[in-house]
Amino acid sequence: MTRTLDLAVIAGDGIGPEVVAEGLKVLDAVLEGSGIGVHTTEYALGAERWHATGETLTDADLEGLAQHEAILLGAIGDPRVPSGVLERGLLLKLRFAFDHYVNLRPSRLYPGVPTPLGNPGEVDFVVVREGTEGPYVGNGGAIRVGTPHEVANEVSVNTAYGVERVVRDAFERAQARPRKKLTLVHKHNVLVHAGHLWRRTVEQVAAEFPDVTVDYAHVDAATIYLVTDPARFDVIVTDNLFGDILTDLAAAITGGIGLAASGNINPTGEFPSMFEPVHGSAPDIAGQGKADPTATILSVALLLRHLGLDEQAAGIEAAVEQDIADRAGNPAPRSTTEVGDSIVARVRG
Amino acid sequence: MTRTLDLAVIAGDGIGPEVVAEGLKVLDAVLEGSGIGVHTTEYALGAERWHATGETLTDADLEGLAQHEAILLGAIGDPRVPSGVLERGLLLKLRFAFDHYVNLRPSRLYPGVPTPLGNPGEVDFVVVREGTEGPYVGNGGAIRVGTPHEVANEVSVNTAYGVERVVRDAFERAQARPRKKLTLVHKHNVLVHAGHLWRRTVEQVAAEFPDVTVDYAHVDAATIYLVTDPARFDVIVTDNLFGDILTDLAAAITGGIGLAASGNINPTGEFPSMFEPVHGSAPDIAGQGKADPTATILSVALLLRHLGLDEQAAGIEAAVEQDIADRAGNPAPRSTTEVGDSIVARVRG
Ligand SMILES: CC(C)[C@H](C(=O)O)[C@@H](O)C(=O)O
Ligand SMILES: CC(C)[C@H](C(=O)O)[C@@H](O)C(=O)O
Repeated sequence: MTRTLDLAVIAGDGIGPEVVAEGLKVLDAVLEGSGIGVHTTEYALGAERWHATGETLTDADLEGLAQHEAILLGAIGDPRVPSGVLERGLLLKLRFAFDHYVNLRPSRLYPGVPTPLGNPGEVDFVVVREGTEGPYVGNGGAIRVGTPHEVANEVSVNTAYGVERVVRDAFERAQARPRKKLTLVHKHNVLVHAGHLWRRTVEQVAAEFPDVTVDYAHVDAATIYLVTDPARFDVIVTDNLFGDILTDLAAAITGGIGLAASGNINPTGEFPSMFEPVHGSAPDIAGQGKADPTATILSVALLLRHLGLDEQAAGIEAAVEQDIADRAGNPAPRSTTEVGDSIVARVRG
Repeated sequence: MTRTLDLAVIAGDGIGPEVVAEGLKVLDAVLEGSGIGVHTTEYALGAERWHATGETLTDADLEGLAQHEAILLGAIGDPRVPSGVLERGLLLKLRFAFDHYVNLRPSRLYPGVPTPLGNPGEVDFVVVREGTEGPYVGNGGAIRVGTPHEVANEVSVNTAYGVERVVRDAFERAQARPRKKLTLVHKHNVLVHAGHLWRRTVEQVAAEFPDVTVDYAHVDAATIYLVTDPARFDVIVTDNLFGDILTDLAAAITGGIGLAASGNINPTGEFPSMFEPVHGSAPDIAGQGKADPTATILSVALLLRHLGLDEQAAGIEAAVEQDIADRAGNPAPRSTTEVGDSIVARVRG
């Protein structure tokens, strides 16, 4: 072995374990004969652990996870756990603790994929969603809870430091793409303070990237464009909440969240980056072998690219593309394992 | 005359005056021979006034507007005015000053209307968007602006008082519709304080409406449903910002913002309600007679229904429906006036 990838694996809840198993299978397959090995360490995090111990993510978990090169995560969330406990206490805690300020969510409409749009055009863009600020910071609070006088506030925090680094990352990604176009999505006519910070920052950083075309859309208008003219987008940079909303919609128009991959990236390398499908734990179909593992498999490709293994990443993406093209001709539903096996076979060639 | 409607008219910016003219033309036509007259008072508000005087909306304007039964508004916004000045200082100020806590936005896919969706199904729902709270309250602020240490915050304020009244209104609307279904859209797994207030309130008010079915979708998932299965929605109740986003997307899937009407309603009658198309001032096509006045004409129908003139409202809606069905057969673009004339002819005939 010339290199061994040291990965942490958080299979998590619901369909998480099923889709992660397929992701790891494809990872093994693509590394076969490359001289690169994989060492995985499983972290038992999620609903079961919380039920058993009351713990979501301890300091010891974080210290352990921090030792690895990258993290592969399946899904977090369970209807038997009060809303917010696992999301805030585990998933978002990971993103914040490991300073995943670039939440990278590519959207590509693969040939042959069914889309709800009648005439989508060529869809191939990437959303750079800020991952450590905005309304996700958990700075809300409530008084007089449960009384007629309750006031519940949520605070969106935006800093020059936080906005500038993610905007710069988005410009770099735009510059590396053929179309070299960046769209800021915000709502600066209403959220004037945060919006103007984002806008000014984009204007300033744009000066360093004269070859990148810049435009702007309010978040409400952006949802219109996503269904009427998604081909206009190349790189979208946006805040944490707007990014959450836009990327689910983007997934829907490009074949559904069963195909949407994401990376929670710490570009400095100070902490491990984390790769996960955009979909959730889908408790209604958990354990039935019905979940589509493609989003996780594409997340593994993002992981490989992040670790500098572009060739292997491209190998997975090509295999997925072929598998997807074949689905069009054969609409019979396949099990989670069958999809994984099919992609493994194509990876092997 | 048995009755004279006393309306304030704010034509506003861009295409506002053009579409309002058609709206008023249709209003006159539908009232012909009914014994009901209209008296309109124009308020010169918007970019021109701001450029000339620096004023957006004075106390005197508000006092004047408050005297009328209802307000018809065209569009507010101009690229030559700094972002936020007219939105916050005029449009939102009106919604807040007149306590328009129900921002009503119906979405219906009229037969024959082109939609970006390949297979939309029967789309007919209404969004009840809260209009006086949430991240729209203007309680944000920034420090160290323009420095690398800038912090810009936006605060979403949600009160039991404010949430309960809009939720109750939404339940009443759901109960009056054949499907009797209400969907709360929020993001309570992340915005836990605001989200839990909304959720608890819906649960409590639901007890008074046992015949209304209630469900819930996170805002990100709701955007997916809007493109994959919009027929599932009947009444959506949601916060101010989520409502802004969802209603633009809803407009896009039901033929575009050229058709989307809205009412900013003060159900108590303490202040006049205000009716406006969902679209903006579209400065790029202003003054060219290209704007589609249908959204404004449908907003006039909402205004009539609000004033208890259901028959006349239905008359406009039926005329619009016929006109839209005919557009399918005749795709040649028509001018703003031609669309208005065509709807007037159908209203009369
Ligand atoms: C589960 C939830 C906290 C999460 C988010 O809002 O970021 C999810 O929707 C996502 O997009 O990864
Ligand atoms: C112009 C803007 C302030 C407004 C809003 O955000 O409410 C508009 O988008 C709308 O939906 O009426």
